[in-house]
Amino acid sequence: MVATVEQLAALVSGRLEGDGNVPIRSARTVDEAGPGDITFIENERYAKLLRTSPASAAIVGPHFRAKRTPVKEHLAVIEVDDPIAAFIAVRKHLSGGGKARWVGVHPQAWVAPTAQVGPDAAIYPFAYVGDQAEVGEGSTIHPGAVLGDRVKIGRDCVIHPNVVLYPDVVLEDRVEVHSGTVLGADGFGYRQVDGKHVKVPHTGRLEVGSDVEIGANCTVDRATFEATRIGEGTKIDNLVMVAHNNQIGRHNLLCAQVGIAGSCKTGDYVVMAGQAGIKDKTTIGDGVVIGAQAGVHRNIPSGQQVLGSPAIPVREQRRLFQMIARLPDMHKQLRELTAQIEAVSALLPMTPHHDGTVGGFGDADEPVDPTGF
Amino acid sequence: MVATVEQLAALVSGRLEGDGNVPIRSARTVDEAGPGDITFIENERYAKLLRTSPASAAIVGPHFRAKRTPVKEHLAVIEVDDPIAAFIAVRKHLSGGGKARWVGVHPQAWVAPTAQVGPDAAIYPFAYVGDQAEVGEGSTIHPGAVLGDRVKIGRDCVIHPNVVLYPDVVLEDRVEVHSGTVLGADGFGYRQVDGKHVKVPHTGRLEVGSDVEIGANCTVDRATFEATRIGEGTKIDNLVMVAHNNQIGRHNLLCAQVGIAGSCKTGDYVVMAGQAGIKDKTTIGDGVVIGAQAGVHRNIPSGQQVLGSPAIPVREQRRLFQMIARLPDMHKQLRELTAQIEAVSALLPMTPHHDGTVGGFGDADEPVDPTGF
Amino acid sequence: MVATVEQLAALVSGRLEGDGNVPIRSARTVDEAGPGDITFIENERYAKLLRTSPASAAIVGPHFRAKRTPVKEHLAVIEVDDPIAAFIAVRKHLSGGGKARWVGVHPQAWVAPTAQVGPDAAIYPFAYVGDQAEVGEGSTIHPGAVLGDRVKIGRDCVIHPNVVLYPDVVLEDRVEVHSGTVLGADGFGYRQVDGKHVKVPHTGRLEVGSDVEIGANCTVDRATFEATRIGEGTKIDNLVMVAHNNQIGRHNLLCAQVGIAGSCKTGDYVVMAGQAGIKDKTTIGDGVVIGAQAGVHRNIPSGQQVLGSPAIPVREQRRLFQMIARLPDMHKQLRELTAQIEAVSALLPMTPHHDGTVGGFGDADEPVDPTGF
Repeated sequence: MVATVEQLAALVSGRLEGDGNVPIRSARTVDEAGPGDITFIENERYAKLLRTSPASAAIVGPHFRAKRTPVKEHLAVIEVDDPIAAFIAVRKHLSGGGKARWVGVHPQAWVAPTAQVGPDAAIYPFAYVGDQAEVGEGSTIHPGAVLGDRVKIGRDCVIHPNVVLYPDVVLEDRVEVHSGTVLGADGFGYRQVDGKHVKVPHTGRLEVGSDVEIGANCTVDRATFEATRIGEGTKIDNLVMVAHNNQIGRHNLLCAQVGIAGSCKTGDYVVMAGQAGIKDKTTIGDGVVIGAQAGVHRNIPSGQQVLGSPAIPVREQRRLFQMIARLPDMHKQLRELTAQIEAVSALLPMTPHHDGTVGGFGDADEPVDPTGF
Repeated sequence: MVATVEQLAALVSGRLEGDGNVPIRSARTVDEAGPGDITFIENERYAKLLRTSPASAAIVGPHFRAKRTPVKEHLAVIEVDDPIAAFIAVRKHLSGGGKARWVGVHPQAWVAPTAQVGPDAAIYPFAYVGDQAEVGEGSTIHPGAVLGDRVKIGRDCVIHPNVVLYPDVVLEDRVEVHSGTVLGADGFGYRQVDGKHVKVPHTGRLEVGSDVEIGANCTVDRATFEATRIGEGTKIDNLVMVAHNNQIGRHNLLCAQVGIAGSCKTGDYVVMAGQAGIKDKTTIGDGVVIGAQAGVHRNIPSGQQVLGSPAIPVREQRRLFQMIARLPDMHKQLRELTAQIEAVSALLPMTPHHDGTVGGFGDADEPVDPTGF
Repeated sequence: MVATVEQLAALVSGRLEGDGNVPIRSARTVDEAGPGDITFIENERYAKLLRTSPASAAIVGPHFRAKRTPVKEHLAVIEVDDPIAAFIAVRKHLSGGGKARWVGVHPQAWVAPTAQVGPDAAIYPFAYVGDQAEVGEGSTIHPGAVLGDRVKIGRDCVIHPNVVLYPDVVLEDRVEVHSGTVLGADGFGYRQVDGKHVKVPHTGRLEVGSDVEIGANCTVDRATFEATRIGEGTKIDNLVMVAHNNQIGRHNLLCAQVGIAGSCKTGDYVVMAGQAGIKDKTTIGDGVVIGAQAGVHRNIPSGQQVLGSPAIPVREQRRLFQMIARLPDMHKQLRELTAQIEAVSALLPMTPHHDGTVGGFGDADEPVDPTGF
């Protein structure tokens, strides 16, 4: 689809500066945009890129003109409050918005007779919907996804290809689960009996709140007895492990390859950076930020930022990192000090013993006449 | 299903104290149990929870009464040797035990004509069973699972949805493999030829012993030439990587996100905590315990517990962690010592050089008269 | 299949020493080879194994005889330039080379009417090929693999079972993707609006160059706007995470469980060892080697080898590891020095203050007569 800059400015309620008649064919990032493209800059730091960009138009933020950044002549500029959101809207408009969503139960899917599928739901080929499972209105079950018996999926959820939901998993509304993710598998719990690891049956559930998004190839285990829970609005990246009995709060961000051992509890707005690991039975307060590759082995109070393995407050950890980097200097300094003190001792009549006492004299704390021998 | 406390006590051969006529509807953990529920406590540490719990009955251990923990009035108590096992049995009884297992080959599955499927096996829709594959008696192949050519699966195995077994993988009896796990993919082996990484073909196998359980989204690669092996009774958590040619011993516990590089060998009863990594060609002795996030780069003798990256014996590592935490103090102490020694030197006639020798004099080891100049 | 040693020597153009008439049934590694088997040794280090091996023949390298390693009597030896390559060829020959590859579209697959499938391609049962998708000549789509709308797959690619390619993913020629891997899922990008994480739509693509191999259960996300790219010849192990907008160079080796955050760029011939993590927006130069479990948080210039978390040049890191290991000694030394200096100070008339100045005197840098008071 082609639109003029003026039409696009109207679409995003932006203020147009320059020639509104320029035709725009596609929306691309500033690195890749060419003639006939509209681009955007996120903030003033990138404004200078517009001087040399061959793009025909750009979406900019409200402070753009204030700085009077000189841009290429003939570049049409649309000023908005939120350049990224406007760019996404323009991009969607130019791409034509895609075909209408397919709905229905495909004949090559398998849906148990006792399952319920809501209106406007889509069940693609090779999807499997078990006994007494429920798929809410407007939800999509992509090819190869497997919904175990009694799984309940709310409205407008998207279950991507080859996702597996074990029996009894419950998803609220607008949950999106990316491909390969496994929800509700048994937790890792055994008891050693006669030299063998005997499995603790996992008869609990997994409950996922509304507006949760879970990335690709994650695993979230069911509870031993009650329920593992993911709070509403929490977003999980790829390859994340959430073990059995976890109670994950609302609006958390769990980055890729994070691992949370069993029976932990997180507050709201917790952020865990990539590859961080949390020991079992740990409580993480509201708003905690856990650094990449951190190893958290004890409870973290609300608002704290931690780093390192074992994890400690980030400022202390940064100090330790600096100290560790200075270890060769410290080591050298120690050697020098040792030499110096030996030299100094040599200048004195008595060489102090290594245990810090001075042989043969009474109290080393008393002043001693160095010329006394 | 509803049962009286007396009936449940009989079911688990427990000793009943209190009113045996109380009807019980469900079994729940002490956090979540309410009136009409039976709960349990694992050990005396949690006994005080029973004072306030609204549960109608509780399963307790043999030492419970010895401590005369005061419990809520009207709480019926069943005393057994193993409260968790009894609770699981009661819970299963109250839930009705579930429907009978479905068996057979579903018409929407695909089973090669040359494959063999044992009696009482179940092959669900969209499962794929390749040429000359064998599925043992009583085994279940869930929806979307793929068994490559010549795969052999023993008796009473459970292959969860969307598991993939590459050709020639062999599982002994009672093996359970959770969803999304990939067994027998090619190992990561290349040789650089003319600036390109040329693949080393992996013509070996993967053999998994009896009573092994493998979690969700794991990967265990086949051997280059012979066989990667997982010893009987070993349990593997989610997202674990076991590379080509590994010889994993019996009754190991590999926690989530552990990674074992190629050609390692572990003894029996090895435990690896979450996110630990093992260098290729490493030998791990019997009963070794490897801490979370540890990086093991050399052989570990039997019975040793290691921690850290690089991993060393846990006691030494804990000492190093303490030392690292004290680095700011050490740094401060060093600065003070330097200042002190400079002050001391200043009080002396000769300032020792930084290399530890005293300029102008012969042997610094000889006592020198400080008043000698 | 059975062949004589002479026939096998001819197959690999090797120089035969010993009895060429010995019949060989299979090719096995030196640990597992028995009578009737041919084995190989990779280099002289393993030559002594041939003295005791019951194998009937062995493939060796060109320098083997130079060292005159005494081998078992009656062992036939084939000398070649590249023992592993020759062994692989012999092994393939003895195994009969396998059955002919099946081609065609299986009736239990689902291929959209608007999709194009090239000649000699194979689409297995339960594979799903979306609208306007293209599968190149000679490519294989294994059971349960899902190709989203507009996916383009070049010639001679192998898509293993249960792989998922999101819409618009492009693979060049001879790309191999192992089971469970998810290509082109949405990146992890949100903006916080009114206390909620609002998703940044990912309308970009993923482009994978020729001769790339990607292991099992990996995730490579699509770009926000343009394209995530994997350069030709790059090889990726299992459970690796490559986030949105990454530009991975050519001939990289990414080992298992590596995680690369968003918008990074790597040069050619980069190697990342297992469990390494890379911060977002990091640039990694050509030929960089990143150690196992390293945490890279800043740009790495070409040719550098880094280790540790945070990662620094490997020689410096090794030095720091040594220093850390010596911390208990340093700590002890500090205590001794403190004691010594206290003892020395005690021998002097004035005890220097802890701030390094000497109370009551003028300039501590000036020589002071210790007998002056």
